[in-house]
Amino acid sequence: MSTSERGSSTVRAGIVVTGTEVLTGRVSDRNGPWLAERLRELGVDLAYTTIVGDRPQDMRAALEFMAARGIDVILTSGGLGPTADDMTAQVVGEFQGREMVLDEALSERIARIVAPLMKRWPNIDPEAIAEANRKQATIPLGATVLEPVGTAPGLVVAPAAGESAPAHAATVVVLPGPPRELQPMWAQALESESLRVAIAGATVYRQHTLRLFGIPESEIAETLRIAEREGVQLGELEVTTCLKRGEVEIVTRYEPNAQETYDAFVRVVEARHADTLFSRDGSTVDQQVAALLRGSRPPRTIATAESCTGGLLAARLTELAGASDHFKGAIVAYSNEVKVSEAGVPLELIETHGAVSAEVALALAEGARDRLGADVGVGVTGVAGPGGGTEEKPVGLVWLSVALRAGEPLTRSVNLPGGRADVRDRATTVALHLVRRALSDS
Amino acid sequence: MSTSERGSSTVRAGIVVTGTEVLTGRVSDRNGPWLAERLRELGVDLAYTTIVGDRPQDMRAALEFMAARGIDVILTSGGLGPTADDMTAQVVGEFQGREMVLDEALSERIARIVAPLMKRWPNIDPEAIAEANRKQATIPLGATVLEPVGTAPGLVVAPAAGESAPAHAATVVVLPGPPRELQPMWAQALESESLRVAIAGATVYRQHTLRLFGIPESEIAETLRIAEREGVQLGELEVTTCLKRGEVEIVTRYEPNAQETYDAFVRVVEARHADTLFSRDGSTVDQQVAALLRGSRPPRTIATAESCTGGLLAARLTELAGASDHFKGAIVAYSNEVKVSEAGVPLELIETHGAVSAEVALALAEGARDRLGADVGVGVTGVAGPGGGTEEKPVGLVWLSVALRAGEPLTRSVNLPGGRADVRDRATTVALHLVRRALSDS
Repeated sequence: MSTSERGSSTVRAGIVVTGTEVLTGRVSDRNGPWLAERLRELGVDLAYTTIVGDRPQDMRAALEFMAARGIDVILTSGGLGPTADDMTAQVVGEFQGREMVLDEALSERIARIVAPLMKRWPNIDPEAIAEANRKQATIPLGATVLEPVGTAPGLVVAPAAGESAPAHAATVVVLPGPPRELQPMWAQALESESLRVAIAGATVYRQHTLRLFGIPESEIAETLRIAEREGVQLGELEVTTCLKRGEVEIVTRYEPNAQETYDAFVRVVEARHADTLFSRDGSTVDQQVAALLRGSRPPRTIATAESCTGGLLAARLTELAGASDHFKGAIVAYSNEVKVSEAGVPLELIETHGAVSAEVALALAEGARDRLGADVGVGVTGVAGPGGGTEEKPVGLVWLSVALRAGEPLTRSVNLPGGRADVRDRATTVALHLVRRALSDS
Repeated sequence: MSTSERGSSTVRAGIVVTGTEVLTGRVSDRNGPWLAERLRELGVDLAYTTIVGDRPQDMRAALEFMAARGIDVILTSGGLGPTADDMTAQVVGEFQGREMVLDEALSERIARIVAPLMKRWPNIDPEAIAEANRKQATIPLGATVLEPVGTAPGLVVAPAAGESAPAHAATVVVLPGPPRELQPMWAQALESESLRVAIAGATVYRQHTLRLFGIPESEIAETLRIAEREGVQLGELEVTTCLKRGEVEIVTRYEPNAQETYDAFVRVVEARHADTLFSRDGSTVDQQVAALLRGSRPPRTIATAESCTGGLLAARLTELAGASDHFKGAIVAYSNEVKVSEAGVPLELIETHGAVSAEVALALAEGARDRLGADVGVGVTGVAGPGGGTEEKPVGLVWLSVALRAGEPLTRSVNLPGGRADVRDRATTVALHLVRRALSDS
């Protein structure tokens, strides 16, 4: 990875994710990344994301840490549930020097939301529910309420003024844990006066993404050195590179007046990596494959026959909405019988070359194309591990083939590192790149 | 969510994940959750996971925060690459009051690792490589080196003694970012004397997981209240509940002498949730389905025919190693033609009832079973969205069917909330539960 540091934005933010289930890794956090992206769009500079368990003193410490580091806006997620140990509102109230008060009108609004849910689960105790509503409607005095999308209200809480004022100036936005609730409530938060004031003055940055496939990340480090040597003012750009599913992603953030510098940087990348740079506009290989299929005259359809990827390639080709326009179907041919009966692979091929071979990959691709009536067929067969590897065909060896209606098929092998999940995931990405190449060339 | 707080363990840890690509959400962090699980096994109490970008001052601030909160062991991931801005070793060296020195022998070991990689990429500048090796071999004086799995060495760095000693006692374990490198290097770290000393005295907790399917999380909150009323000393247990892929997971951590309390708690859960509690030993529905198939006399095989899940069910059935013993294959029948030609669904059924119907789900299940020669067939057809929903068949409606060789098939519909990805993922989980039920009953 590689970053050229630059002057930081005038508005800095931190995210505090609460929840023992997130801290311990049983649930992966989707809110931190989502909020990070929203902050970026606003030109607010995210400095820290801290995950804490359901312990008020740890949450308080995380808030204090960020305030002490001069953070202007802190976003929290989680800990707004109806049980007594969901403590975020209380902790934030104390942090901001504000008394906790019951908002009767809010309590009634929550009761109206909860009423129909109670009918679905008839055995629930109504007194417990009323208590839960009151708890959720007890909020820091003077906070802005974000109306519940589930049952929990969110809050925007500025520091108290006067005697109880804390020693910091950070505004806290309190959001619920479920992403389906948090996301619409963030939009509400943005309309609140206290948040607007806190983020006023943020610099709006531009951000662009380049993607490359088939080179090591260290080559990008070298490219950055070359760009610098050729006079590109990298100090004006914040360049982050990372390796993701076998692709190198270069994300650059810069102030609008550094546009020329960015353009010069892109020219250096293009000159050095013409053969591996596949995306200049941030589009993913998934989007490019879909666009190539739809953009053909006439549009083309695709089908897969997969062994080691076990359906992951089909799942990925159907991830984007509208896939039914170009995706016909797939055969997951795990056993050799199914390879023969469903994908039409001649048994002799398997007996002569083995199930993991160029010949079988091609036969799978042609079988997918012909059996499923598609214009493009993709075949994948490999050793995902952990067992089944031999000296000749080790774990990680994958053969892939793309067969079009006309023209030569593209057949390749790769040796993929990592465990079973890595090999399966990476093979799926390699297959998409092979399809992209076959479609671009044809 | 719901947690009963209890006395904390004597050894506390923090995790600092570095990387702008992680902080900004472009790459999701796999190391924090993995290390959290390892710490749990050791009886070490994780208090914070903080994600910082590639900025030395932010990383330093995160380390200082944890040390100030009395954390005993800090684990870092990332920032060990060859470029000048991968700064973790340097930041940690300064934090621990240790001078940075070039370890010549380590530099040579790295050179030997890099040599074969250079052959793959012949245009790389050898001087740049030598410089990178020296950089990666420059480490805090007196640190324990963890041998590279990729090219980056890890470190265990205790605070310096004497004049340059810092004001804290935290030991820092410095690990690389790629999970494939980090995981084996953690095993090495555990053998180092300084880490052993730092974690000596950790309380070993017991942890058990219960899983339920088909009830709202709020019901568990009520169960906790009932358990308390019935005299179960919940204060001795740390109970965390969360909703995950449509399942409710109850994880309980306790000291060995609270075993009877935990057993009493489990009895309350069993009494109230007999019909939805499917796992008492932490096993997942994936593992249970695999065990049921293998444990049949004779063992049974499975195959799927999927529409809206697009191969995700097949991918999930092949996620665990050894799947080839019981998984035959799958037909991803996205288009109606493929449903007819490959899965053997009669066209009249589709015309009469629509592709998303009980009849077509059953025909898909039978088609998978018969065409792919399996003992158990699973059919899934639904409206994943965002388009394609109607008033009668809205987005989120999914029909599922499990057809065995003998006995009645199980056919059910569900209305799943959320976006396209949620509906696809949730439908996959529901299908696994339907298979589990069909196999348990037969």
